[in-house]
Amino acid sequence: MKIDGKSYRTVWTESAEGHVSLKIIDQRRLPFALVIEELGSVEDVAVAIMDMHVRGAGCIGATAAYGVWLAAKECEGSREKLDSLCTRLLCTRPTASNLAWAVKRQLKAIEGQSAEYWADLTLQEAERIADEDSSWCLSIGRHGLPLIEEIAAAKPDGEAVNILTHCNAGWLAFTDWGSATAPIYAAHHAGIDVHVWVDETRPRNQGARLTSWELENEGVPHTVIVDNAGGHLMQTGKVDMVITGADRVTRRGDVCNKIGTYLKALAASDNDVPFYVAFPSSTLDWDIDHGVGVIPIEERGNEEVSRIEGVLDSGEIVNISLLEEGIQTANYAFDVSPAHLITGLITERGICRAFEEDIKALLGGESEIEYLSI
Amino acid sequence: MKIDGKSYRTVWTESAEGHVSLKIIDQRRLPFALVIEELGSVEDVAVAIMDMHVRGAGCIGATAAYGVWLAAKECEGSREKLDSLCTRLLCTRPTASNLAWAVKRQLKAIEGQSAEYWADLTLQEAERIADEDSSWCLSIGRHGLPLIEEIAAAKPDGEAVNILTHCNAGWLAFTDWGSATAPIYAAHHAGIDVHVWVDETRPRNQGARLTSWELENEGVPHTVIVDNAGGHLMQTGKVDMVITGADRVTRRGDVCNKIGTYLKALAASDNDVPFYVAFPSSTLDWDIDHGVGVIPIEERGNEEVSRIEGVLDSGEIVNISLLEEGIQTANYAFDVSPAHLITGLITERGICRAFEEDIKALLGGESEIEYLSI
Repeated sequence: MKIDGKSYRTVWTESAEGHVSLKIIDQRRLPFALVIEELGSVEDVAVAIMDMHVRGAGCIGATAAYGVWLAAKECEGSREKLDSLCTRLLCTRPTASNLAWAVKRQLKAIEGQSAEYWADLTLQEAERIADEDSSWCLSIGRHGLPLIEEIAAAKPDGEAVNILTHCNAGWLAFTDWGSATAPIYAAHHAGIDVHVWVDETRPRNQGARLTSWELENEGVPHTVIVDNAGGHLMQTGKVDMVITGADRVTRRGDVCNKIGTYLKALAASDNDVPFYVAFPSSTLDWDIDHGVGVIPIEERGNEEVSRIEGVLDSGEIVNISLLEEGIQTANYAFDVSPAHLITGLITERGICRAFEEDIKALLGGESEIEYLSI
Repeated sequence: MKIDGKSYRTVWTESAEGHVSLKIIDQRRLPFALVIEELGSVEDVAVAIMDMHVRGAGCIGATAAYGVWLAAKECEGSREKLDSLCTRLLCTRPTASNLAWAVKRQLKAIEGQSAEYWADLTLQEAERIADEDSSWCLSIGRHGLPLIEEIAAAKPDGEAVNILTHCNAGWLAFTDWGSATAPIYAAHHAGIDVHVWVDETRPRNQGARLTSWELENEGVPHTVIVDNAGGHLMQTGKVDMVITGADRVTRRGDVCNKIGTYLKALAASDNDVPFYVAFPSSTLDWDIDHGVGVIPIEERGNEEVSRIEGVLDSGEIVNISLLEEGIQTANYAFDVSPAHLITGLITERGICRAFEEDIKALLGGESEIEYLSI
């Protein structure tokens, strides 16, 4: 997608004078600074994943895949060293199953191959993984577009389709296009007048920082709101549809996503606002029926609640405390929206209702990745 | 209530050497600094109300009442000058009907009285208004206490009653005790083990800044959470009841309160968690049947969403930007929770269901104040 008019992915390679280099956008600095970082070693990749220079299932998977390519170059033909470097990558975010999947897929690509081909083979496979991720998202956009077209067609002339989204399930979380944002970008490119309500998404403010920055760069009109506002907007007819991403979807269609998603699903249901969840089919966890109380919910550090990052008027980026010292906080990272609150699921293979039979019919048996997590 | 072990009200007078002075807590600085401000003139009072050194219906009303006492001293017996000073007070927050009510009540107190008595009469009446506000809140606490006792009795030994609250309907919003917090303080003082989930309440963070500070000083165990978290907590059995305040309640029991209250009411209803709203009966607006789409919702400045105040590690209090420059925001201050989501209303006159007949039976005809607003 575009940054200042130029097309980017979240992770990519550049060739110059016979040298191929690996680049990422350091997402920690957005939206206050655009920092392009070169990852020159496996250790660079490990740090980038661990310290969240990159985040989001698709983006982590692709970055890890490129990491295995760097490992293949660094290992000097030693399989033992290659495995050790891959273990380094795997330890960076143990719950990110997309990371493990990408590393495994890379090792499969060199199975039975002579060490002299490892670098070439893993580079090709990494590009393929990054391309696939992008094309899944593009397909999500293509399948979601008619939903927005239908709402637009029913609107009086000159009125935008108002879409609310939560957190960042945008292109920054994948290699390109995003999941929840893909139908929005598709509609915008098709000339449909869309306007996005962007939940700021405390505590990490990925909506305010990342989704808003994406939409601004792509030229999609949008308004940032506090997480408390969405219910009122839906009550008063200011939201035509909600689209969020998903971290994990159960076989019966319960959706585990960023904390606060459930509150928006309740408000959408209470006000007959269509609530869609967009994700690549690999997000399906076929082993779980119901999500509430079953999917383990990560508890993250207290400082995400008690502190926040922003910019002083001088331009200096600072991290400040929002609470008196010693005040206790709790920080649950995800919640579960039960299937009955969800209008439909948008995947790269098409759209279905959040019913077990419908999901099975569309997405069939086992997925390649067990589940994704960010 | 207590600050560092000493009892305070939000606004009070002190006598020393024959001189009576008016004091307030400058709430803008909480929780990072406790600043006691002396208001020596009507202009001081006007600025304190306008710039929100004091906020909350009851607290504004009492402060304005004391402001009329200062006006009576400043006017040198001129009724024209007194009226002009009262107009100055009335213009500070035009939508705060409790302010207008307090000023009117003060002018009624001196009706037909000789100018030499104005100062004494308005000081007495101001003390009465402040005392009444406190005693209403104390009664709300007394009526709400049995609800908490009942939950406590049904809990296994050693388990706290978990109460979620939104925004600050605490003693800082009144002269003492608060509305939503009054039953909590009553339970705590009665030796019941309570724990409060405090919504931070973006954009102004009154939960994180004020409610948390109140509870900390009163020694009530509590945990600050982001506004997104309450749904997950209710889904997983971590909330026994919700108590919020109200800015305006319709004759049929719809509740207009701080933005985001509606989302918590939905989650409470979806998870069979009792949802109570506590307020002095003067908050009833008998002129309105249904609230959604009828009660005008104040839109406030964008900078409340785009910026936030906190403390650098150096101890310096700073205001920082959370968004890229030029990003559009919207800032709706309140929302409406429909009566059917509300388990009960707790007032100084008792508890009732959020049904028109029940409300009428408990609170009867017209209220003295048309409605309160903060």
